[in-house]
Amino acid sequence: MDKSQIEALLVGVQQGKIAVDEAMEQLRELPYSDLGYAKIDNHRALRNGYPEVIFCQGKALPHIQGIVQKMLERGERNILATRASRAVYEAVAEITGEAEYHEDARIVVVRRQPVRLKTEKPVAVVTGGTADIAVAEEAAVTAEVLGNRVERLYDVGVAGLHRLLSNTGVLFSANVVIAVAGMEGALASVVGGLVDKPVIAVPTSVGYGANFGGLSALLSMLNSCASGVSVVNIDNGFGAGYLASMINQM
Amino acid sequence: MDKSQIEALLVGVQQGKIAVDEAMEQLRELPYSDLGYAKIDNHRALRNGYPEVIFCQGKALPHIQGIVQKMLERGERNILATRASRAVYEAVAEITGEAEYHEDARIVVVRRQPVRLKTEKPVAVVTGGTADIAVAEEAAVTAEVLGNRVERLYDVGVAGLHRLLSNTGVLFSANVVIAVAGMEGALASVVGGLVDKPVIAVPTSVGYGANFGGLSALLSMLNSCASGVSVVNIDNGFGAGYLASMINQM
Amino acid sequence: MDKSQIEALLVGVQQGKIAVDEAMEQLRELPYSDLGYAKIDNHRALRNGYPEVIFCQGKALPHIQGIVQKMLERGERNILATRASRAVYEAVAEITGEAEYHEDARIVVVRRQPVRLKTEKPVAVVTGGTADIAVAEEAAVTAEVLGNRVERLYDVGVAGLHRLLSNTGVLFSANVVIAVAGMEGALASVVGGLVDKPVIAVPTSVGYGANFGGLSALLSMLNSCASGVSVVNIDNGFGAGYLASMINQM
Amino acid sequence: MDKSQIEALLVGVQQGKIAVDEAMEQLRELPYSDLGYAKIDNHRALRNGYPEVIFCQGKALPHIQGIVQKMLERGERNILATRASRAVYEAVAEITGEAEYHEDARIVVVRRQPVRLKTEKPVAVVTGGTADIAVAEEAAVTAEVLGNRVERLYDVGVAGLHRLLSNTGVLFSANVVIAVAGMEGALASVVGGLVDKPVIAVPTSVGYGANFGGLSALLSMLNSCASGVSVVNIDNGFGAGYLASMINQM
Amino acid sequence: MDKSQIEALLVGVQQGKIAVDEAMEQLRELPYSDLGYAKIDNHRALRNGYPEVIFCQGKALPHIQGIVQKMLERGERNILATRASRAVYEAVAEITGEAEYHEDARIVVVRRQPVRLKTEKPVAVVTGGTADIAVAEEAAVTAEVLGNRVERLYDVGVAGLHRLLSNTGVLFSANVVIAVAGMEGALASVVGGLVDKPVIAVPTSVGYGANFGGLSALLSMLNSCASGVSVVNIDNGFGAGYLASMINQM
Amino acid sequence: MDKSQIEALLVGVQQGKIAVDEAMEQLRELPYSDLGYAKIDNHRALRNGYPEVIFCQGKALPHIQGIVQKMLERGERNILATRASRAVYEAVAEITGEAEYHEDARIVVVRRQPVRLKTEKPVAVVTGGTADIAVAEEAAVTAEVLGNRVERLYDVGVAGLHRLLSNTGVLFSANVVIAVAGMEGALASVVGGLVDKPVIAVPTSVGYGANFGGLSALLSMLNSCASGVSVVNIDNGFGAGYLASMINQM
Amino acid sequence: MDKSQIEALLVGVQQGKIAVDEAMEQLRELPYSDLGYAKIDNHRALRNGYPEVIFCQGKALPHIQGIVQKMLERGERNILATRASRAVYEAVAEITGEAEYHEDARIVVVRRQPVRLKTEKPVAVVTGGTADIAVAEEAAVTAEVLGNRVERLYDVGVAGLHRLLSNTGVLFSANVVIAVAGMEGALASVVGGLVDKPVIAVPTSVGYGANFGGLSALLSMLNSCASGVSVVNIDNGFGAGYLASMINQM
Amino acid sequence: MDKSQIEALLVGVQQGKIAVDEAMEQLRELPYSDLGYAKIDNHRALRNGYPEVIFCQGKALPHIQGIVQKMLERGERNILATRASRAVYEAVAEITGEAEYHEDARIVVVRRQPVRLKTEKPVAVVTGGTADIAVAEEAAVTAEVLGNRVERLYDVGVAGLHRLLSNTGVLFSANVVIAVAGMEGALASVVGGLVDKPVIAVPTSVGYGANFGGLSALLSMLNSCASGVSVVNIDNGFGAGYLASMINQM
Repeated sequence: MDKSQIEALLVGVQQGKIAVDEAMEQLRELPYSDLGYAKIDNHRALRNGYPEVIFCQGKALPHIQGIVQKMLERGERNILATRASRAVYEAVAEITGEAEYHEDARIVVVRRQPVRLKTEKPVAVVTGGTADIAVAEEAAVTAEVLGNRVERLYDVGVAGLHRLLSNTGVLFSANVVIAVAGMEGALASVVGGLVDKPVIAVPTSVGYGANFGGLSALLSMLNSCASGVSVVNIDNGFGAGYLASMINQM
Repeated sequence: MDKSQIEALLVGVQQGKIAVDEAMEQLRELPYSDLGYAKIDNHRALRNGYPEVIFCQGKALPHIQGIVQKMLERGERNILATRASRAVYEAVAEITGEAEYHEDARIVVVRRQPVRLKTEKPVAVVTGGTADIAVAEEAAVTAEVLGNRVERLYDVGVAGLHRLLSNTGVLFSANVVIAVAGMEGALASVVGGLVDKPVIAVPTSVGYGANFGGLSALLSMLNSCASGVSVVNIDNGFGAGYLASMINQM
Repeated sequence: MDKSQIEALLVGVQQGKIAVDEAMEQLRELPYSDLGYAKIDNHRALRNGYPEVIFCQGKALPHIQGIVQKMLERGERNILATRASRAVYEAVAEITGEAEYHEDARIVVVRRQPVRLKTEKPVAVVTGGTADIAVAEEAAVTAEVLGNRVERLYDVGVAGLHRLLSNTGVLFSANVVIAVAGMEGALASVVGGLVDKPVIAVPTSVGYGANFGGLSALLSMLNSCASGVSVVNIDNGFGAGYLASMINQM
Repeated sequence: MDKSQIEALLVGVQQGKIAVDEAMEQLRELPYSDLGYAKIDNHRALRNGYPEVIFCQGKALPHIQGIVQKMLERGERNILATRASRAVYEAVAEITGEAEYHEDARIVVVRRQPVRLKTEKPVAVVTGGTADIAVAEEAAVTAEVLGNRVERLYDVGVAGLHRLLSNTGVLFSANVVIAVAGMEGALASVVGGLVDKPVIAVPTSVGYGANFGGLSALLSMLNSCASGVSVVNIDNGFGAGYLASMINQM
Repeated sequence: MDKSQIEALLVGVQQGKIAVDEAMEQLRELPYSDLGYAKIDNHRALRNGYPEVIFCQGKALPHIQGIVQKMLERGERNILATRASRAVYEAVAEITGEAEYHEDARIVVVRRQPVRLKTEKPVAVVTGGTADIAVAEEAAVTAEVLGNRVERLYDVGVAGLHRLLSNTGVLFSANVVIAVAGMEGALASVVGGLVDKPVIAVPTSVGYGANFGGLSALLSMLNSCASGVSVVNIDNGFGAGYLASMINQM
Repeated sequence: MDKSQIEALLVGVQQGKIAVDEAMEQLRELPYSDLGYAKIDNHRALRNGYPEVIFCQGKALPHIQGIVQKMLERGERNILATRASRAVYEAVAEITGEAEYHEDARIVVVRRQPVRLKTEKPVAVVTGGTADIAVAEEAAVTAEVLGNRVERLYDVGVAGLHRLLSNTGVLFSANVVIAVAGMEGALASVVGGLVDKPVIAVPTSVGYGANFGGLSALLSMLNSCASGVSVVNIDNGFGAGYLASMINQM
Repeated sequence: MDKSQIEALLVGVQQGKIAVDEAMEQLRELPYSDLGYAKIDNHRALRNGYPEVIFCQGKALPHIQGIVQKMLERGERNILATRASRAVYEAVAEITGEAEYHEDARIVVVRRQPVRLKTEKPVAVVTGGTADIAVAEEAAVTAEVLGNRVERLYDVGVAGLHRLLSNTGVLFSANVVIAVAGMEGALASVVGGLVDKPVIAVPTSVGYGANFGGLSALLSMLNSCASGVSVVNIDNGFGAGYLASMINQM
Repeated sequence: MDKSQIEALLVGVQQGKIAVDEAMEQLRELPYSDLGYAKIDNHRALRNGYPEVIFCQGKALPHIQGIVQKMLERGERNILATRASRAVYEAVAEITGEAEYHEDARIVVVRRQPVRLKTEKPVAVVTGGTADIAVAEEAAVTAEVLGNRVERLYDVGVAGLHRLLSNTGVLFSANVVIAVAGMEGALASVVGGLVDKPVIAVPTSVGYGANFGGLSALLSMLNSCASGVSVVNIDNGFGAGYLASMINQM
């Protein structure tokens, strides 16, 4: 139930088209639906502007199915499930025919109405290398589902700076930039020095040795000498896409 | 030299009021001024929208003076010097009578023309405790100098949640929130769960023991279960204020 | 052999119903039973009030069987085996028909007499998310087997604070609270700020990236700005349930 | 304002001895007093059972004075200020003649009425070495001010086990044990194995080399093979004393 | 070729029973045998008193076979291969019928002549728990093969101190003690405080959570407050057994 | 396209043998070829002197095939693919019959013209142990493909110093030395103290326990007390071989 | 009171020269003397063979004086106080004229009877550099006071291997070797590979940067590829000297 | 005594101008001079091509004086003392009038004959910021004293990339590049991607917060995605200058 749905409900009540009892019933689970193993935050769309997202990693398949089922019953228009394996996708597909799977991004989307662009201004998603694409796609698909236009610019790491410098058009026209990089994570600083828009840095666990599971890129990005750069968790493509959308639609 | 100054120069040339030679001379140091020990990035105002900021920590006083001198000569309207001790302030004050010192924030501002609010929308700066105020003030003063209205909400950490919950008005009316906290840094997650605006989390080194110089708050904020939260370096009030201003003025 | 069993034995001797030799034999292994690969601490029930618990992780199946066998022979009323895979359960079930398996909690209980509630005061077990339930169940089942009433309150993490705040009844009526959370572990601080009872914080390894196997939640909980919070090892649901029981029955 | 004071106020209103306006005024700052730089949590005594404690480290002297002043005006019976240097003590002594300084414990107590023992059951505070005494005293004084009888047992580390074993009387008669140790922190495990009461382990930063500021004792205590042991932050004597008091008075 | 074999060779030359050429040939590979992928340190027995030991982890099976083959040709009396999987054992068994496998200890021994006790004084190997036995056996078997009498005392961790205290006979009669423990590793300190003989502490990776792969036990043992304790690498049973043998035979 | 190929093209244009249009077409992708998921840095051979190398780890097989295909079309003479599993080799072999697989080194080389020695001066590759050979071979094969003569000296770790000291000839005649070692990584310091040539130290993740995935050797090498030693990432044989070649051919 | 003193006492009783009461009084504090802030382990000399040593770091001067006073009264023959500043020395000198100060070693010795060599076999103390000498002297003086002959070999680090190799005489004639080194700590491995005697490795905090307070040398020594090496805490010269003495006198 | 001095000595002997006895005496201390607290590696100039350098940090002033004195007596032409405070300079100046102090670089040089350029090819030293200059100067002065031409390019960090890109001339003409940077250390990767010469990366401890004393820059540089980059210890300007000289003079 997002803002427009609640507004429609209240207008219906005001106009006598919906009985108070019926409205009460619909609003009963407004704060959250309690499934025992999960409390779905239905109020989130009102409070944060977006419906709750299902983080699948570590959740049992029946739990995921139960949550999706409840959200469908509650009339959520679009459902986003992240860190979703193919098995998750298949479990959701048993429940609804509207599930689609973004394999690279490990995201399941249940799209019950077309995503409408909420702004024309693009979000740029850039990566240092080819191996960072999975995380980048998580960010890109998230931003797209939330109503943003996304420009992808992949494999432009600083070891071959001209690849980035010959594509500054994408960077300069973007309203928000998501910089995804593993190894030394220098991309975020270089991009941050070039643009006058917020840069959301996503360290990835891509690399080996003294990378220590993404620590090198994380520290590098936190210590960026460029202003306007902030950082999300290692491999957290979803968080970057979500925040980019929030900023882009301000 | 910011955008409007360059535009004025070009219009002067177009209208024949400024000779090409003279304009060339003024533009000669546009990319940067080279002082040997420092290369002042004059182009930054064009590229990033704000003039270069002087990070004083680790710089010798004569170097800081030299940089300020050059920026004054270059006609920078307002100069911001961060991590500035009182000695830095006094050194700058020797050069220009317009320097003012924000002691809490450890910031020197050389204000050559009044700061104009660029937007009415406020930036909220909240802290977990009283000891986080120095970092918070660095963020707040930075945002104010860059033309933002700032609302301060200090000492509302999660150990007494009602202090925060009875001030949600400040949070809900803000366009961007800067959450500053040391120790366990839980404030960022709680704030992030309450608002639908970007939250910039600043971990501070306030604490002791297993705080490890701010590591506990840093990791906590990076792992925030709330969406819309991103993180800057430990104690990096300036970075948060700068990014908040950038987002607030979009 | 718990306190009441030893008392009964001594009374039997006093009343001449049990011969000294026979009593001696029964008491011979009172300090511990030596199996070579293990020394079962039979004295523990006297010293610590609870029988020794079998930590199965890293132990060979025949060793676990040997220990259970010995404890059964020694007349332990109830046996608790933690970190038990299904294979462990099956190995124990070969020996005794009284084994029951709590799959979520990975606990095997051999219940030879009904668990009696030793106090009416409840222990509350709360989790930040659905993925923390396995650890929470280890704590809950442990506390139940040791004679406590347990209230479960799952998926009330700080990203949707109203889910917690609308359930404060459970928290306020509890005598001890076990707060189980991964990621940023902020739940412990928020709960600690709300209640005036001991809070046992259990960091979990749930999360990814800069979570570093539970380190983020661990540090967060150790640095809690709320008083009355103490911490056990990452994922140590058993330890929390055991300590909660100890405090609850004081 | 603690529970009994509020009750007295309400009874006064009920009996017509206190006007509603006057009561309203007295209750106006019940949730918290806002000093700008600090929000004193007056509600805490109701919610958590104890008044708010002033953590002095990192706070400016005038701020500390302001907070104490406000608490005195609000009629707090006893005020506890921890991590207090001698300078803090002197600043507080300027405001009230009732301040006393516990140098070992770095605690200032403003005692406006005698501390009444709330239980006869003792809390034992044991240390591994002589150098751990400062942290132990912070715990002991805190517990004493909160109304507990405290037994001290210092310098009984595991390198000379008989020193501990010949004092088990203190341990066995205690209702809660606080185990304070640096270096390898083994004391907590040994004590935990001996008693059937909750053990609150306090790692200290005492040691050198691979002690890494208390990390060795912290990890050791978190990994304790003894049940019934939980851990607070490194050097957090106050937290241990507070929690011990909470458990002891259940 | 150990010391006695070389001595015999030289005596043979002295007495004219062995030709110089023949002796030269036998001594040609005295420093080391070069297999390309390995340089077997034949000189080791002379220099360090023991033949080189094969550390199998990370070595290819054919390489291990090649090394064993060469050592057999060189006339090594007894060969020790550590960190040996069953596959390694089978590969060695293809080459020589004299290989025996110690499964617990993951050690293959090729015994070409009976091990002779070089001293009557025993080495004690004690463990904190049952799960530490694999590492302990690596130490014990190593010490036995090198000619020492070994006393095993397993599962005597500090959570049940009487199990250790009732077996002090083993400790007091030992000439060297190897203390093997995971989790908090307190065993080493307790043992070190009881005996007046060298204690070799072996931290194990047994545990979970904040154990961090053995780090907790390692730091604990390095910070031991007991004198006479030194530490080898995590899980390094071989190193402990070897060093114990060296000390025991002084 | 390396330097000589571009020069030939330009000479052809100069001499009228190649039409400008045709030359333009050949030069169109000079900076990089854009495959969407990858931007192949064709300019690299001009800028860095060597063609771009394919780092296979984390890349999908079709992506690797696409990159190789493009490089073949672009006329690259020799292609190097590192961190290549057998599956990668087979995927490349589907495309070109010229692929050869160095299993130890996990490298695929597509050799379209014989490698020509660019200098007679040898690069020495030395290892501490047999288990370091995989990393060493990655370095050695890389250096060989880039036109260097390589001398291998394996298993000469400091535990048997005479194995190294009896082979100093190899070290003294080398122009650059690559020292590959895990565990304590002391080899780099010892070699660095012996030679007057640059030593490139490669820490390996070989070891266990407090090796922490190569951290021990990494720190050891960074802290080398010998001058002339620099370090590359853990297990980064390719980086060492590449840098050695660069220095060797100066 | 060491073994010979107690024996003399008992013989006196046996022969009627000492009254039982008098002997009782002398034995009353045998287990430990309780000073409140310290429990001096008098039994240690019986149990561990050496009297208790005073670790001065972190102890108040009056406490140190009290402990020394008590030990003098108890008739300890020789007293060793480590980590002693000059101020500690002066405080002890106030009490007894027999205190001598070893400045390099930061050790105070109260020598009431000449130290008698308990064995002719020497302990060798070797260092990597000149800056390691303070730690080495702590080890050397400790071993000397405990009755050992000590050979010093300083500044023989692996960067100039011939300095070590030309002094192998000292190493080969030693019965135990203490290897003291900071930075990369390679000395321990090299020495361990050369001798057939126990090597006690002492990592020092000497170095900078990625030395991380001695961590690099510590990890290096723990991962030593040489057998017969064990490690004590960073900068723990005393521990090494004590253990060396224990082994040397076996 | 460098190579040419020894050669001259031998020629003198050959020609009968120097008696064998006299030559013997001069060569007596060739391997090293033993001062007890230090063993000066005189052989180093022969073995490594450069005389031994005095690392002053942690050495006592009299020791430094003793070492310089000995080196002067031994006829070293030029002496380099690094990490030298002004007090060190003054102590050396007492001994010889030829000492000069490079304050920025914290280096004392005793120049007994003019430094002769050994190659015309320049070494470039570049820094990310002004605060990195101290480390950079240590590298630059070292390289100059060893006979190299040095080009300095300071404050060209990646936040203002045009400052670097407009100075590529310096980079492209250099034979070796030393890249000095703190914070995120991205400079090394960017430079490594631009040039085809060896890049020696020096992480500095410049920064704050999650910089952790230089760890962020160190990890960043070790994980550099650019080839041809190797790393020395944090703040190790000397090591970089020495290695650069070695490579530059090949």
